[in-house]
Amino acid sequence: VSELRVDPITGRWVIFTPDHTRRSTDFTPPSPLRSDPASCPFCEGHEELTGNELLAWRPGGSERNRPGWHLRVVPNREPVLRVESHLGSDGALLFQRFGGLGAHEVIIESARHEDSWTTMTVEAVSRVLWAWRERMRDLKRDVRLKSFVVLKNHGALAGARLDHPHSQLLAMPFVPPQLAEELEGAERQFKAKAHCVFCEIVQQELQLNQRVIASDDRMLTLAPFASRLPFESWVVPREHAARFEDGPDELLEAAAKCIQDLLRRLDATLLQPPFNVALHSAPASPDVDALFHWHIEILPRLTRVSGLGWGSGVFVNPVPPEEAAQVLRDAL
Amino acid sequence: VSELRVDPITGRWVIFTPDHTRRSTDFTPPSPLRSDPASCPFCEGHEELTGNELLAWRPGGSERNRPGWHLRVVPNREPVLRVESHLGSDGALLFQRFGGLGAHEVIIESARHEDSWTTMTVEAVSRVLWAWRERMRDLKRDVRLKSFVVLKNHGALAGARLDHPHSQLLAMPFVPPQLAEELEGAERQFKAKAHCVFCEIVQQELQLNQRVIASDDRMLTLAPFASRLPFESWVVPREHAARFEDGPDELLEAAAKCIQDLLRRLDATLLQPPFNVALHSAPASPDVDALFHWHIEILPRLTRVSGLGWGSGVFVNPVPPEEAAQVLRDAL
Repeated sequence: VSELRVDPITGRWVIFTPDHTRRSTDFTPPSPLRSDPASCPFCEGHEELTGNELLAWRPGGSERNRPGWHLRVVPNREPVLRVESHLGSDGALLFQRFGGLGAHEVIIESARHEDSWTTMTVEAVSRVLWAWRERMRDLKRDVRLKSFVVLKNHGALAGARLDHPHSQLLAMPFVPPQLAEELEGAERQFKAKAHCVFCEIVQQELQLNQRVIASDDRMLTLAPFASRLPFESWVVPREHAARFEDGPDELLEAAAKCIQDLLRRLDATLLQPPFNVALHSAPASPDVDALFHWHIEILPRLTRVSGLGWGSGVFVNPVPPEEAAQVLRDAL
Repeated sequence: VSELRVDPITGRWVIFTPDHTRRSTDFTPPSPLRSDPASCPFCEGHEELTGNELLAWRPGGSERNRPGWHLRVVPNREPVLRVESHLGSDGALLFQRFGGLGAHEVIIESARHEDSWTTMTVEAVSRVLWAWRERMRDLKRDVRLKSFVVLKNHGALAGARLDHPHSQLLAMPFVPPQLAEELEGAERQFKAKAHCVFCEIVQQELQLNQRVIASDDRMLTLAPFASRLPFESWVVPREHAARFEDGPDELLEAAAKCIQDLLRRLDATLLQPPFNVALHSAPASPDVDALFHWHIEILPRLTRVSGLGWGSGVFVNPVPPEEAAQVLRDAL
């Protein structure tokens, strides 16, 4: 059972997951990607290797927890947070601890082991975003859960432990640091200008046309002005929208189309790089409706983050976003 | 020449270092640690492979840029920031860019290639801290420089590119994110309680004695309450002190003794893990004298940071600090 702690200086939350089956000093190198379909818990026919499914796309009306699906959502087998936990608190002023309340689910994005977001149909990628949205809508009925982290690790270098296509959804009783940082900045800007800074960025980027990778009526794909990593890219709705889970089907389909297009451009340019995908959507508070704007960040993992990043939080990026955008625009 | 950019949403600074000798799409796997003393630019006798030395410890009074030294400080050969740059600004409201002003230096910590902080004498480790302090004192005469990052990467997995013992010092025209986060938290606490939160932590940790790894009259070595990584450890002065560079020799010697003791405990416990060391010291502003407290963070790199860390900033740590502290206390 995990425990949440709040850093007494910064207020940052950390999740502790003590594992009593091993000694605290046993650290083995990260195991290689498990890639044998015969033993893959996410492959069709291996439904008994996962927990009970929470959601599935079964076009033929097949039975729950049995074959005949295109997508399944199941509990993470080693959840870092659980809905059965209580937030609690031990009451110490400086050293605050809480129970590991939350949820940690896995979206199995395809029945086919060798699929990926670039080889799947755009309908299949849309279905992944649909599953994210449906699970978020269900989980947010629990008022103890404040925010979501939805992310995808593609490739061992990006942190994936299984190569069957999947993503993870975490619901948390706190707002995670990167989202908190964006919210604070967006609030500062809203106080000064009375409009959403993301909307302003969308307008200016379309007008400047230096960092735009692609765009259509609904979505903009851009290389952000102060990108932390080479070829970092964002997919942003052109119209203001604070929360991903409030989005209609058409918007999800447009986002899926943009993400797939971007990943194909990255594949063509950078020889199928490992990458992370992270959804940033507003937390439960209604106060942020006007100032936050959901977006999806795609982070290729081409360089190792050095001690400078670790020790200070300062990123050093060798590729300006204008150059990244031009290369990706010309890629297909 | 590098460029600084400010993220229009979060205000985070990013350093761009475009390299015009390669294509932006050329990314090779990180090169292995360079470990041949015959070609090592930091070994004694190879002084012509570095820039002009900025500081050295030459007990026999030997000539500058020649053999006969125990420690040298030289400019980084690929500096991400330079004092010759101008901060400037292109004036755009949303998209702020600045010149790559700052300094980036390398402290060659020993003339012997195979030395490390655990094998060096405590006097030699003290000399490293002395070099950090002297370079900080010199650089802070440039009022354009607001803060310092001093860090050490030990081992390829911690980001080192040469295994000759060395550390890096960066002077920056902005306050880096991790320091900014600590400053904000410390300021919040100071406003509420009118005392330094680090001083309160030192008192409480000594009293509770659950996360103390070692202590003496001047310094405390502890596993922080909300540690992000397994066996993360901090070395903190027991008396209030905002800035490392104001510290007297005796305090530097006490810190060197604690760091070496801690690293020997980590080596004995975890089979010589790769690690980062980062100095956190107050930025130039006098407003923070009463509320910030310098400390040195030692971060063993035992686990890979997953997409969760990347996509959200949330750390998942399998080892509670109470357990880490106990193991390290019992290690020698």
